[in-house]
Amino acid sequence: MPVNLPEPTVIAPIRGVELRTFASGMRYQGRADLLLMQLAVGSHTAALFTRNKFSAAPVLIAKQHLGVENAVEAPANSATRALLINAGNANAGTGQQGLDHCLTSCAALAEQLSVKPEAVLPFSTGVIGVQLPIKEFRNSIRNLVNEPPCDWLAAARAIMTTDTVAKAASRTVQIEGQPVSVSGIAKGSGMICPDMATMLGFVATDAVVDQATLHDLLTRATQASFNRITVDGDTSTNDAITLSATGKAGHVPITDAHSAAAQILYQAIEAVFIELAQAIVRDGEGASKFVTVTVVGGQTQQDCAAVAYSIAHSPLVKTALNASDPNWGRLLMAIGKAPTDSLDIGVLDLRINDVALIEQGQPHPDYSEALGKQEFVKDEIVLTVNLNLGAAEYTVWTTDLSHDYIRINADYRS
Amino acid sequence: MPVNLPEPTVIAPIRGVELRTFASGMRYQGRADLLLMQLAVGSHTAALFTRNKFSAAPVLIAKQHLGVENAVEAPANSATRALLINAGNANAGTGQQGLDHCLTSCAALAEQLSVKPEAVLPFSTGVIGVQLPIKEFRNSIRNLVNEPPCDWLAAARAIMTTDTVAKAASRTVQIEGQPVSVSGIAKGSGMICPDMATMLGFVATDAVVDQATLHDLLTRATQASFNRITVDGDTSTNDAITLSATGKAGHVPITDAHSAAAQILYQAIEAVFIELAQAIVRDGEGASKFVTVTVVGGQTQQDCAAVAYSIAHSPLVKTALNASDPNWGRLLMAIGKAPTDSLDIGVLDLRINDVALIEQGQPHPDYSEALGKQEFVKDEIVLTVNLNLGAAEYTVWTTDLSHDYIRINADYRS
Repeated sequence: MPVNLPEPTVIAPIRGVELRTFASGMRYQGRADLLLMQLAVGSHTAALFTRNKFSAAPVLIAKQHLGVENAVEAPANSATRALLINAGNANAGTGQQGLDHCLTSCAALAEQLSVKPEAVLPFSTGVIGVQLPIKEFRNSIRNLVNEPPCDWLAAARAIMTTDTVAKAASRTVQIEGQPVSVSGIAKGSGMICPDMATMLGFVATDAVVDQATLHDLLTRATQASFNRITVDGDTSTNDAITLSATGKAGHVPITDAHSAAAQILYQAIEAVFIELAQAIVRDGEGASKFVTVTVVGGQTQQDCAAVAYSIAHSPLVKTALNASDPNWGRLLMAIGKAPTDSLDIGVLDLRINDVALIEQGQPHPDYSEALGKQEFVKDEIVLTVNLNLGAAEYTVWTTDLSHDYIRINADYRS
Repeated sequence: MPVNLPEPTVIAPIRGVELRTFASGMRYQGRADLLLMQLAVGSHTAALFTRNKFSAAPVLIAKQHLGVENAVEAPANSATRALLINAGNANAGTGQQGLDHCLTSCAALAEQLSVKPEAVLPFSTGVIGVQLPIKEFRNSIRNLVNEPPCDWLAAARAIMTTDTVAKAASRTVQIEGQPVSVSGIAKGSGMICPDMATMLGFVATDAVVDQATLHDLLTRATQASFNRITVDGDTSTNDAITLSATGKAGHVPITDAHSAAAQILYQAIEAVFIELAQAIVRDGEGASKFVTVTVVGGQTQQDCAAVAYSIAHSPLVKTALNASDPNWGRLLMAIGKAPTDSLDIGVLDLRINDVALIEQGQPHPDYSEALGKQEFVKDEIVLTVNLNLGAAEYTVWTTDLSHDYIRINADYRS
């Protein structure tokens, strides 16, 4: 059950973006599992990819098509004209044959669209270690391009795997009196601990932005969103996030990431990114709580992140949260095992929501089991650690660990 | 259900060690929960402690009594005359009052035994964040010292918490024609990812060993055993392991860790340590499989350990193992996300038991789902990764992740 995550309603269309989906039947029955996102001529696309060394074939090919084989990030590129996404098969751990199949699918789509194969970026999500049924995939691509255009919500549904709710977000701002929209979709539920990007996220805007600025906006927004979530600490082989700008909004081009217009656009992009990233956590496999772990007062952001992730990854903390059990001793355990030396437990504060558990390293005198229970039972929980050693801070969003997580992941392939 | 872990039977008594237990009723009903291990005059005791910065009060006091407040390891010390262990309450996260209670309990026992308080080393295991009922504890200590001596198996039972099987191991060797025994007990089932030592382990020998050699033997044996296990990746606030030598065996004192006699003794100690460490994994919370993760062919041992722990800690690998699902793609994911740069997926081999999954980075042509299923369904699984980059290797023992783990940890305090 997702945590306070309604299905999105209105997502602004983006001028210069056309979306199409198709139900290939390759893995799922009765639902779309292929998505095509076409970008108008002149669009720029920036992308970030997983750091997992067993990167999937589509990650390797997408990077090749962007000309950044050996990097995890691709500076914005104006050659990209189409994103091709399939759900149900990750095309990872598939060796040379997987790469061949991925290239074949890009070539097939490129031929249909009369663009170069390098103008197609492929993305896959689903089971690892299974070859794509390439013949069916090629046939389905022909059908896909002939579908009528669909809206962003239909696109979001077509990329789901273990997700239970479609994830889409949208903001519209004014730049020089012109409406500028940012809309995006994402998918992800398990194998979530992005290290550069999330499972899959595709965001587009009609803003007029140059390549360097677009890359800067993507990197900052990802750092503030997808790189701050974890469901189970496992980093996918297929993570990727793209930000495309079609340039259709008609304002003066944004060429300075620190200009006023760039700031307005960035706020909209960041809001969309954070909404999508949090949606992944809210729909995390087996999630029954949405947990914000905020560590403040650190000497460095790295110290704060180490403590935050140590809490967010602890199976014992996560099972206690699942049980609404105020077993806060496990929080101390998780803080204490964090891989940082900049931790003085004698000055540390800890609270859940507004209830203090530890103050200056000592159990808080006003705390009671009943008070703790009241907070641990909630489905929106904020855990705040104050290291009281400096001014740095870091926030991570995560979930509990439940029977449903085990059920979903023991049964996923069956 | 523990995995192939029968209750131990005969554990050799150690001359110079007296064991006593008592059922205090402080937390558990109808079972012993206090253990006293008395050591003859002239015994040496070496100890290793958790690196968790929220170390429990008994860890801090034991280190203080050993004169090593700021270290994780205590060179062997001949002042130690008694180990006092309580199960059910970890006395961790209890602030100054927890330290006071711990000192009070040591003083109470010291008075009963007519030794200095510093001769008592305290150890606690159980729930974190609850104050010890010190009045009952003091009364129980008076009863404890008046109990008749018990055997090692009874001692092992008295320190259990979520353990389902008592853990004890023993070896007897000959040194200069004299029988020398090594016997030990351990407890642990969850919050298991020792970083220097395990939950609690107490091993004794009647060998005649000097202080420096004893410390060397303890450190090496711990590195080969307790520091290679993980159930859930969570590192306890209370981990401690001790090795005491009473010197009653009558052979010429061992003063060189590399002498023939030291090697014979080390083999026995290491065998006991590994048997106890593996018993903790076999009885891991919710475990249905005993999994050996061996990484060979690395450039450094650190690289091998990084890959081994990345597999052993992955919730998605562990749920696939639990389901006997040959979803080996998750193994690639876990290898690929390991925090090391010395990984070339193009030359890597992977197998489960004797079945090859990946060879030189490519799916093995002889592999089939049926073949994989045959291996994944077993309750003893060896996962072998060959990095094919060097001669280093590392092995970690772990378990699967099951519904029972969630049940145990959602219900632990209730």
